[in-house]
Amino acid sequence: MENTKLGHHISQQFEEELQDIRTRVMTMGGLVEKQLSDALMALSDMNSELAEVVVTNDYKINALEVSIDEECTQILARRQPTASDLRLVIAVIKTITDLERIGDEAERVARMALHFAEAGGDRKMLVGILHLGELVRGMLHGALDAFARMDTEAAINVAREDPKADREYESILRELITYMMEDPRAIPNVVNIMWSARALERIGDRARNICEYVIYLVKGKDVRHTSLDKVESEARNRK
Amino acid sequence: MENTKLGHHISQQFEEELQDIRTRVMTMGGLVEKQLSDALMALSDMNSELAEVVVTNDYKINALEVSIDEECTQILARRQPTASDLRLVIAVIKTITDLERIGDEAERVARMALHFAEAGGDRKMLVGILHLGELVRGMLHGALDAFARMDTEAAINVAREDPKADREYESILRELITYMMEDPRAIPNVVNIMWSARALERIGDRARNICEYVIYLVKGKDVRHTSLDKVESEARNRK
Repeated sequence: MENTKLGHHISQQFEEELQDIRTRVMTMGGLVEKQLSDALMALSDMNSELAEVVVTNDYKINALEVSIDEECTQILARRQPTASDLRLVIAVIKTITDLERIGDEAERVARMALHFAEAGGDRKMLVGILHLGELVRGMLHGALDAFARMDTEAAINVAREDPKADREYESILRELITYMMEDPRAIPNVVNIMWSARALERIGDRARNICEYVIYLVKGKDVRHTSLDKVESEARNRK
Repeated sequence: MENTKLGHHISQQFEEELQDIRTRVMTMGGLVEKQLSDALMALSDMNSELAEVVVTNDYKINALEVSIDEECTQILARRQPTASDLRLVIAVIKTITDLERIGDEAERVARMALHFAEAGGDRKMLVGILHLGELVRGMLHGALDAFARMDTEAAINVAREDPKADREYESILRELITYMMEDPRAIPNVVNIMWSARALERIGDRARNICEYVIYLVKGKDVRHTSLDKVESEARNRK
């Protein structure tokens, strides 16, 4: 399987191409992170202008996805990579899909920030989701960092945060349902916040997906649909 | 680009492998369709037993995804496909990701059916989402059919249904918000139905994704993030 080791390519240009897609994934990841933190800031400051910027910028992420995807297909067709090079290309194709969808979720949060600012919603309803937002932003950052350094330990630590995000999300839901029952006039506003909470929870799931691709990339094992303990033992195994 | 034409492979075995992953995608698609229709039936008949079956069966879809994915990676590594063969493998990798997520959404609907049956919810709240359910089930069926026949016209027709699903979803949301405002005690139940409505709307999005992969596969053009009219003109262009 491992005839071709990273760093021993016959073709210098091929290595540059592989490095290039890695760099472009990081660029895309940085953009997505910025979109998410701007969406959260727009929400917390009720800043409609910033929310509009996030909505407008989503096309940049979509364009990057299509372009990196195309580059990956070209590499597969021209270079016909095997072993770890092939895994890198496949991991990149999957990672950019998740990054693009995280961008969509960030856009949803920004749209909700717009509605919330317009409707003059009660800021106390936001405490929980802003906290969840910070948690999943940290997860996304950690996942990208693990990808950049091909660090499976870091990837596992990020994946371990996901159940925490799920629990925070569940607790936010319960709280929001209470708000609605106490004040039915607030229901449309609260429903909006519920969608944002769901969007943030999904961002956590997708950050975990990226961590699983890092493990697949480095270890050659597909750890999706596997318990975290199993993932951890897989990731720690030497090949 | 098109040096290798489907049907003129030197290797008979390679062709059989490509045929095999197509067949397995259809098997997986059939299973996902069954899960979705069972989830909808469980909801409409308040049949907890059937809902449990859907929840239990999800692992089969996950296992199929991992196994087809592995087969695709093997084909990329061993056969180093180019042109339309490469596009087929990439389209399969992407399609099974969406199918797996559709399976997750069907499981969510089934879980909701369980809660709804337990809580003894009011059946009139279900009319809208059962209708949306039928619409997206038809879209999924159409998308799989377009994939099986590599039919871009059929793919476009399915993609054209997606805005209709989005409109139905929006109208269901408005209706559910009204229910909640009229009867705050029903809020927890209604919130559950909202999640199911969202799950169904997402299934429509993913069926559309599959249609876009079919167009990519047949025409070699990436039509994601493109308006439907543009997609249609791309798909109708002869190469």
